[in-house]
Amino acid sequence: FERLKVRLHQVAHLSSETKDGRRIILRANLDLPEEIPFARDYGAEGIGLFRTEYLYVSRRELPYEELLFETYRRVVEDIAPHPVTIRTLDLGGDKFASVLDLPEEINPALGLRAIRLCLKEDHLFRTQLRAILRASAYGKVKIMFPLISGVAEFLRARNLVEEIKEELAREGLPFDPEVPVGAMIEVPSAVAVADLLAREADFFSIGTNDLIQYTLAIDRGNEEVAELYEPLHPAILRFIKTTVTAGHRAGIPVAMCGEMAGDLLYVPILVGLELDELSMNPQSLPEVKLFIRELEFKKCRELVEKVLNLTCQDEVKEAVSEVFGPHIRKFSRSLWFE
Amino acid sequence: FERLKVRLHQVAHLSSETKDGRRIILRANLDLPEEIPFARDYGAEGIGLFRTEYLYVSRRELPYEELLFETYRRVVEDIAPHPVTIRTLDLGGDKFASVLDLPEEINPALGLRAIRLCLKEDHLFRTQLRAILRASAYGKVKIMFPLISGVAEFLRARNLVEEIKEELAREGLPFDPEVPVGAMIEVPSAVAVADLLAREADFFSIGTNDLIQYTLAIDRGNEEVAELYEPLHPAILRFIKTTVTAGHRAGIPVAMCGEMAGDLLYVPILVGLELDELSMNPQSLPEVKLFIRELEFKKCRELVEKVLNLTCQDEVKEAVSEVFGPHIRKFSRSLWFE
Ligand SMILES: [Mg+2]
Ligand SMILES: [Mg+2]
Repeated sequence: FERLKVRLHQVAHLSSETKDGRRIILRANLDLPEEIPFARDYGAEGIGLFRTEYLYVSRRELPYEELLFETYRRVVEDIAPHPVTIRTLDLGGDKFASVLDLPEEINPALGLRAIRLCLKEDHLFRTQLRAILRASAYGKVKIMFPLISGVAEFLRARNLVEEIKEELAREGLPFDPEVPVGAMIEVPSAVAVADLLAREADFFSIGTNDLIQYTLAIDRGNEEVAELYEPLHPAILRFIKTTVTAGHRAGIPVAMCGEMAGDLLYVPILVGLELDELSMNPQSLPEVKLFIRELEFKKCRELVEKVLNLTCQDEVKEAVSEVFGPHIRKFSRSLWFE
Repeated sequence: FERLKVRLHQVAHLSSETKDGRRIILRANLDLPEEIPFARDYGAEGIGLFRTEYLYVSRRELPYEELLFETYRRVVEDIAPHPVTIRTLDLGGDKFASVLDLPEEINPALGLRAIRLCLKEDHLFRTQLRAILRASAYGKVKIMFPLISGVAEFLRARNLVEEIKEELAREGLPFDPEVPVGAMIEVPSAVAVADLLAREADFFSIGTNDLIQYTLAIDRGNEEVAELYEPLHPAILRFIKTTVTAGHRAGIPVAMCGEMAGDLLYVPILVGLELDELSMNPQSLPEVKLFIRELEFKKCRELVEKVLNLTCQDEVKEAVSEVFGPHIRKFSRSLWFE
């Protein structure tokens, strides 16, 4: 155990870049402030996805502003000098908050959830935005909206942030006036208009779980069709590429915070797709970093060129393991698995 | 009433083309063979979408091959010399067949439906394909698979058609060996790989209802989010354009058979998006044709160039009515509405 700790410490201080110098920022996905020390031990350069549902689903009543503020402030301070990307409330769909008394829906995944719910139940959203903005005075905060489907919706949410800033200014409460505001890219329509969205957003973060679900029209929780849920479907890889290209043309960074980001099999492709940042469960960070340090960016890009024109996930997997199989196998035998 | 019939007859014999000579084929969406005379009266140049669920949901037991064959043969013969595009079974999702005993799903729209169900319950599918192929000996039949998500899935279905052809040949039963086999484009992933699919399919038909639902992640049956279901969302228009471009580059025709095809407000955009064929409820055919005859293809294309870069449905609607408002209003005052 001590040996693991020493090794973790060593790895945490290595830079996450490929052999030929392409840097990929590695961050953690977290739900609770208590997890931060753990994320730091594992070498996270900040939190790429801080989920905010916990305080809404774990209690009998809606959280009040001070409780939210104190929670976010603690996160912001504990992760400093690194940044935290706070995702605004992503309730509905499969995550229910009994306090909200949401209607029953035939297809909840295609229903009133995430940013839609927040823009409709605007008092909820205002309280959360006030707490986030107030916490932004204590470190580096970014605000991220889930389930954005287009420019108009993003601007509605972004304008609300501006309104709250004015409100706080009037009340004399401190906040970061430059807080970046970004869009999660997880609805196919957001990919289709990524070039237009990139002009309005300060960053993108690709949420692969929902993006795959909607793009393939597959509920990943449904056993009957689970085998059709394919992260390496060429359509998914193309949508990621479209998003990255749109972001980079507009000069904004593009992150990925879905489960895909933490899987070794996918890492060479994600590096080749030129993602700037991968955010994942903290436990995956050390092995992903060590793996990235063995890769050549050039080879990853060549691999991507090739796989974008394949016809199914199996062919993509084969192409990946043809080039990177020995590396991936080496890692499955590494320290971390012994 | 007599006057209407005479007028219908006149319109039915007009060619559906724009002032500057761009021809758009107009076909009917039907569920029952009994509707064919009606479709002919309204000037349909064939059936662009023949739905085949009726015989599965209206009975206590699964339809047997002869019943299917006789039904399809009647359709094929009655619509001759025009073609009929038969969509293979599109059950599941919102359409339940009690005879099939399908599992309960949390998000049925993202579950086991349409081609997925057919490829899984392969005996069902084989029976239907045998009946369709046998009917193809009696006229012009095209086979269309619903909910195709990628190349591998399309090829599995297409290969099954080839297998059945061999089977029928061995049995000495007649069929059209050249029957075209196409893909419905209604899952976002199919749009993403439309260039690859176009190499394997003989035609595309865009199903707007599902395409909009999945692209925007909006269940159109859900009142809570119904206002977010936007056929003119720029993302939808871009996906249509991507599909048409991919089809035409590969030399295959691209049709549209969703509800969008029958709405006057959308017609100038659909013409400008260069769709080859629009299929709709028969009642909409005369007015859509008369409207098309008032349009200039050149102006429609200019409109499309413009709207693809707008940010929301409202802006798109405004742009359409700016150019075509007087025409649309003229038609709302026309014979058909008096
Ligand atoms: Mg999500
Ligand atoms: Mg459909």
